[in-house]
Amino acid sequence: MSTLTVPFFSTVEDDLQQLEEKLLQSVPVSHSTLGDRLRLLIQAGGKRLRPTLTFHAGRIYDADPERILSVAAGIEMLHTATLIHDDLVDNALERRGVTTLNAAFPMGLVVLSGDMMFAEAARLVAEADHVAVIRSFARALSEICHGEILQAQSKHTLTSLEDYYTRIYGKTGSLFRTAAEIGAMLGTDDPDQIDAMSEYGRLLGLAFQIVDDTLDFTSDAQHLGKPIGHDLREGILSLPALLYHADTPSLHGAFRQVVAGKATEDQIAETIEAIKRSGAVERALEIARDYARQARRALAVVPDHPGRQALIELTRFAVARDR
Amino acid sequence: MSTLTVPFFSTVEDDLQQLEEKLLQSVPVSHSTLGDRLRLLIQAGGKRLRPTLTFHAGRIYDADPERILSVAAGIEMLHTATLIHDDLVDNALERRGVTTLNAAFPMGLVVLSGDMMFAEAARLVAEADHVAVIRSFARALSEICHGEILQAQSKHTLTSLEDYYTRIYGKTGSLFRTAAEIGAMLGTDDPDQIDAMSEYGRLLGLAFQIVDDTLDFTSDAQHLGKPIGHDLREGILSLPALLYHADTPSLHGAFRQVVAGKATEDQIAETIEAIKRSGAVERALEIARDYARQARRALAVVPDHPGRQALIELTRFAVARDR
Repeated sequence: MSTLTVPFFSTVEDDLQQLEEKLLQSVPVSHSTLGDRLRLLIQAGGKRLRPTLTFHAGRIYDADPERILSVAAGIEMLHTATLIHDDLVDNALERRGVTTLNAAFPMGLVVLSGDMMFAEAARLVAEADHVAVIRSFARALSEICHGEILQAQSKHTLTSLEDYYTRIYGKTGSLFRTAAEIGAMLGTDDPDQIDAMSEYGRLLGLAFQIVDDTLDFTSDAQHLGKPIGHDLREGILSLPALLYHADTPSLHGAFRQVVAGKATEDQIAETIEAIKRSGAVERALEIARDYARQARRALAVVPDHPGRQALIELTRFAVARDR
Repeated sequence: MSTLTVPFFSTVEDDLQQLEEKLLQSVPVSHSTLGDRLRLLIQAGGKRLRPTLTFHAGRIYDADPERILSVAAGIEMLHTATLIHDDLVDNALERRGVTTLNAAFPMGLVVLSGDMMFAEAARLVAEADHVAVIRSFARALSEICHGEILQAQSKHTLTSLEDYYTRIYGKTGSLFRTAAEIGAMLGTDDPDQIDAMSEYGRLLGLAFQIVDDTLDFTSDAQHLGKPIGHDLREGILSLPALLYHADTPSLHGAFRQVVAGKATEDQIAETIEAIKRSGAVERALEIARDYARQARRALAVVPDHPGRQALIELTRFAVARDR
């Protein structure tokens, strides 16, 4: 991964290496073909942002490395489990350049695989022997599910901005929050410090997800690992579309078809162009940058430490990335 | 529920009433139609055997009632979550006389509902603030998923008896074990006592599941809440079928078609009759009675207490019931 050269990853490079090993060991293997596929899925990886937050937060408060590793692995395992079920729910056929489980296995086995990964995640987090950490984890799982259900409900609907923020908190903010918070919890009991890391994670997650949503308009299929306009095609209206709509409440033809889920590919392309031309993507990015600034401010009370510096860098990466 | 007149339920009747309230309060309500349906599903209930184990075990060791209630609710919530996903995986349209979620909602929403119930279960169990309890719970979730995957894999296969026992441990033994074990854990640190309750739960669960599997041959649709021969129709070969096969290794025509999943209703009925005539159902019940005896023996080290007496009665109920 080229991203490993970025300082906030490189300073936890050994941790991330141990994480890979722990994740691969933790894949349940009762079904060998499925086990192979789950390991591939884990190896395809992604950026490991959530465990990176846990590692840095844990280091800042001098938490026990073994326990940090367990909960970091639990967080990433939970994330993987939710992706397995998401891809099934969305009928997605590819993720991170790898065929999804639901493209290769019957629905039942995919449901159960996700469940098994949830179980494994719970087991990993329980290894840390810290009840508050486990509670934070359970809350995240609940919030993620609520977010997913909200997203399923709001398809083809011009929801309020408030609904949008609730949705992306569930989708990304919640687990970022937990990832940062539980790293701190393992090393300190100070509620101010734990709250600061919790807020940092939440705000970073929101910034990250908003940028993700803009990339669906501005990136290209090769960078993104999926075709652009994916959300619009699925009837998911994210921040740029909602900001655009707020300015032009009378829906023009193509956008109306997109919202209704009846758009042709030409109408989707036309809508993407209209939204980009309106400046809504840039305004969404400005909101993301503001969340990133707020995330940095949340770190004001956190002790000076290379980990803190890395977390600050992460807020800049979150809003500057192109994938 | 008529079963409430049975002593092992009546002595925890107040607990079970509080359980109902706690379960209904815990149903996530972000989607109102779905929330109503989930509450119906919980109200349809079933026997509440698992929380009954937790209540009795908790009482024996004088555990805090609030914490017992939380984990009992967590156990039943986990059980409900697994049933939601099971019904989806098996495409079952009715359970306990109530339409299943998957008969009423799109697949995606059913997957997410089950996940949400898992999350709620984890939250409830975490309320008890006891790490060993949470670990036991995570292990059960993992074992249940493994059992389900094993069952999915072994459809249309004459598996070994060993595989059968692994499967039913995952399906029922594991959560019975955890239900009894965590009740004890909340009130004692004595490993001998915890092990005894753990063994009791496991053995009772095995007895219970074997009887369940025989009822699929001997009950009727009205008592069972589903047509008899359900397992055979699904290609699931349970203990009576496996014992029958062990005696008559050359498969006769109808049974061969059943195993292959190509049987007509007449061939299923013919196979059920052949298995019943062979005495395999009675032999399966004898094995269940033996597990029930072993479960009683496991209680030998447990202190004399009305709860212990109730657990002994439960072993008799498990093998004498007709539904």
